[in-house]
Amino acid sequence: MTDAIVRELRAVLGPDQVLASPADRVTYSYDATYLSHLPDVVVFPASTEQVRHVLAVARAHRVPVFPRGSGTGLSGGSVPLGGIALVMTRMNRILEIDRDNMLARVQAGVITAHLQETVRAQGLFYPPDPGSARISTIGGNVAENAGGPRSFHYGTTGRYVLGLEVVLADGTVLKTGGMTTKNVTGYDLTSLFVGSEGTLGIVTEVTLRLLPPPPPARGTLVASFADLTALGRAIGALAAHPARPTSLEMVDRHCLAVVEAHRPPDIPPGVAGALLCEVLDWPEALAGRLRALEEVCRGVGAVAVSGLADAGAQRRIWAMREALSPAVARIKPTKISEDATVPIAAIPAFLADLEEIRQRWRVNLLVFGHAGDGNLHPNIICDERDADEMSRVQAAIDDIFAACLARGGTLSGEHGIGLLKRRYMPKALPPETLDVMRRLKALFDPDNLLNPGKVFPDGAVEEPLAGRPVTGPTATPRVAAEPHDKGDSANQQPLGGRTA
Amino acid sequence: MTDAIVRELRAVLGPDQVLASPADRVTYSYDATYLSHLPDVVVFPASTEQVRHVLAVARAHRVPVFPRGSGTGLSGGSVPLGGIALVMTRMNRILEIDRDNMLARVQAGVITAHLQETVRAQGLFYPPDPGSARISTIGGNVAENAGGPRSFHYGTTGRYVLGLEVVLADGTVLKTGGMTTKNVTGYDLTSLFVGSEGTLGIVTEVTLRLLPPPPPARGTLVASFADLTALGRAIGALAAHPARPTSLEMVDRHCLAVVEAHRPPDIPPGVAGALLCEVLDWPEALAGRLRALEEVCRGVGAVAVSGLADAGAQRRIWAMREALSPAVARIKPTKISEDATVPIAAIPAFLADLEEIRQRWRVNLLVFGHAGDGNLHPNIICDERDADEMSRVQAAIDDIFAACLARGGTLSGEHGIGLLKRRYMPKALPPETLDVMRRLKALFDPDNLLNPGKVFPDGAVEEPLAGRPVTGPTATPRVAAEPHDKGDSANQQPLGGRTA
Repeated sequence: MTDAIVRELRAVLGPDQVLASPADRVTYSYDATYLSHLPDVVVFPASTEQVRHVLAVARAHRVPVFPRGSGTGLSGGSVPLGGIALVMTRMNRILEIDRDNMLARVQAGVITAHLQETVRAQGLFYPPDPGSARISTIGGNVAENAGGPRSFHYGTTGRYVLGLEVVLADGTVLKTGGMTTKNVTGYDLTSLFVGSEGTLGIVTEVTLRLLPPPPPARGTLVASFADLTALGRAIGALAAHPARPTSLEMVDRHCLAVVEAHRPPDIPPGVAGALLCEVLDWPEALAGRLRALEEVCRGVGAVAVSGLADAGAQRRIWAMREALSPAVARIKPTKISEDATVPIAAIPAFLADLEEIRQRWRVNLLVFGHAGDGNLHPNIICDERDADEMSRVQAAIDDIFAACLARGGTLSGEHGIGLLKRRYMPKALPPETLDVMRRLKALFDPDNLLNPGKVFPDGAVEEPLAGRPVTGPTATPRVAAEPHDKGDSANQQPLGGRTA
Repeated sequence: MTDAIVRELRAVLGPDQVLASPADRVTYSYDATYLSHLPDVVVFPASTEQVRHVLAVARAHRVPVFPRGSGTGLSGGSVPLGGIALVMTRMNRILEIDRDNMLARVQAGVITAHLQETVRAQGLFYPPDPGSARISTIGGNVAENAGGPRSFHYGTTGRYVLGLEVVLADGTVLKTGGMTTKNVTGYDLTSLFVGSEGTLGIVTEVTLRLLPPPPPARGTLVASFADLTALGRAIGALAAHPARPTSLEMVDRHCLAVVEAHRPPDIPPGVAGALLCEVLDWPEALAGRLRALEEVCRGVGAVAVSGLADAGAQRRIWAMREALSPAVARIKPTKISEDATVPIAAIPAFLADLEEIRQRWRVNLLVFGHAGDGNLHPNIICDERDADEMSRVQAAIDDIFAACLARGGTLSGEHGIGLLKRRYMPKALPPETLDVMRRLKALFDPDNLLNPGKVFPDGAVEEPLAGRPVTGPTATPRVAAEPHDKGDSANQQPLGGRTA
């Protein structure tokens, strides 16, 4: 990165909005994984036009651009590999809440929870609730097609995206979709960008559909199981029942052990796992629906079931669930949260696979997740400074994804591929499918300027990633490399051919 | 079309599965619009492999291929313009109902209602219910992203498509998506094919997610309005209410006049329009929910409202709605069903536009549709043999879409663009958006062999389409043209540049 590039960026964004000091670069070098790598420079555009200007500088100097929101991602999707870190958090305006049309138009950097609260104040509802909603941005949610517990009933972020404004690599400002919930006017470009992890264009504006608030009565179903087969049967039976809950979450016995101090009386000690479900309905219907769901769980062998309508009793259940993440963080410093997703009937077998992997590699693996969607989060608690442990962790992760794919599953339900899972892509997708994706990438970004090194198993970073910062030819921090250096690096290689 | 091509097709499909007689070609020359054009030859593949063989013959001779299901489309999307009509109805096997994973895997030619009934018999539910469900195919539903009344609550076909098998123009068999409801493993290729009207590839197999059956109690809300402004306010208020119905349909006074003999006592004579809503819920909650919705309608000035839980009373309402199409068909022989879709708050103004257009062009225009989605079906009842009337009809359609776009709407909510609306595409989409779509088309189908002439405002058919068969250089029926004739025709021109 030459001083000339920094000067050009400062000329278009203003001097305060371009940071190049080592401390500032460190601040934008990581996401919520253990991965980190320094960008060469950090920029904060305030408008679509400024994003275009940044891309013009990037094109002129063949410097890659790494878009990011709040950096809460769990796949390394926003970790810069040198180049320009394009931070969208200044584009944080809710441009319009169109109450009559039940739409919101927002800039990409709007915080998810801020949108949720703003539309709630107007009597409307934005359903997606990723775990990071209080920090994450809508643009980041779009980039990874973020989900959360409510996705079981309400779907993921993509279901709410009606239209996008996207700056393409060549500077074109593309408008996709529109203001209607149904739209078959040409190809569905909107969905092509949702989940594309910033590799096809920079999303600057999002039009979202909103719903009315859910019915006001809230119930919680808790069911505990002595073995994983019964737990798996319950997931299938609950998902297939007309009364099925709004969310259908699970925790395994290792999770329960971690929050033993918070264990509510509804969950007996020593069970193999529990399901925690939220049910939203009308007051008249809630009790009957909870009873029906209790019956379902008993019918498949639950050892304890409670259908709770009482607010205090419910609070105890969710307090235990909320205690899980902080409790896990106290065990060891590094938490690797995976996102393996399997067809729901494969959950018991996959949970058995995970238990075997836990023992085989002696790793501290615990599993929770959005069971109704088959979207499990195997979490490994470790210490990235312990090289021996981390090599076992890496082996365990390899085995987790091999098992997930063998069970008919996929690499990601809601976190994306990013850097962490790109090496598994050739195993997850047929070569024809990966090839079509590469051709799309090349169509939209022929010079591979947008978030290069992500999603596709190409580029310089071929080695196992666990336990150390990303390294390799493109990953060496450098402050004053020649401008064309990036252009010659492996990040810039034409797509196709080379795979991990 | 040379005899050589027909011979080659017979060699790969068997002699019975390739039809070239004038009578057979007529049978596959039209869809549910008034458009028709003869294909040169009609083929009936029985497998993905046979589809590949047909495409190989098409590539070798540069003959275009026009895929079709049952021909119930309403935009001309499956009308062949010469070339090979590729009829998918022999690929009609339900390959698998995976009850445990709540999935169905079907061939593209499966009839929608057959799938609905098959999964219902297994205690599951496939929600999309396009009006043509008893005849249409799943492949056709995917091609146009078909909707129906229930889409208001359940979404359109695309929400249920988890994965596809698609034969690309170059013969590649592409697999998209997978077996999980959440999937962020690379780009969302599935959604790119949904709604692409057979222009990017031939969908041969579809993996669909299924739901549990809806709650068992059914109610109907009928609300009548003296003016369209009140009706529009009611649509917005119902859509934004937590108790909002499962479907939210409207009929205008012209529709009510046509079925006056079937008018139930719930709808007073002489109203401007009525809303008909289905509410599915638990028995305990139904009455309260209907009361809440009645209250909403009264609050915005309905002149009559009934929330019906009684089966007989509900039957009367839906019998009136079902009588509409046959009654309309008796008025005049030609029915042009449009699919204009506007943001819901724009419905009253758009309905006023439609009334003005009705009077300006003296056309018999009536409006019903999926009001909750802003998805209106302005229907013009006419006689395609009456040239004067048809020129007024064409002018009215032009004005309908101009008004729709001026109100922030889009050309299609669920019928697609096909032939009928491609001339409006440059008005509906910014040039950059249309250009990206063209580039995608060129990427997947560089020789423009797949359903050429559809969606994009290119090709030979530039003249108004109403009231006559499609004509023009590519549209002249010919049985024994030279094989390379098609290759030189306008259908084969490179994409980009030329617009209607």
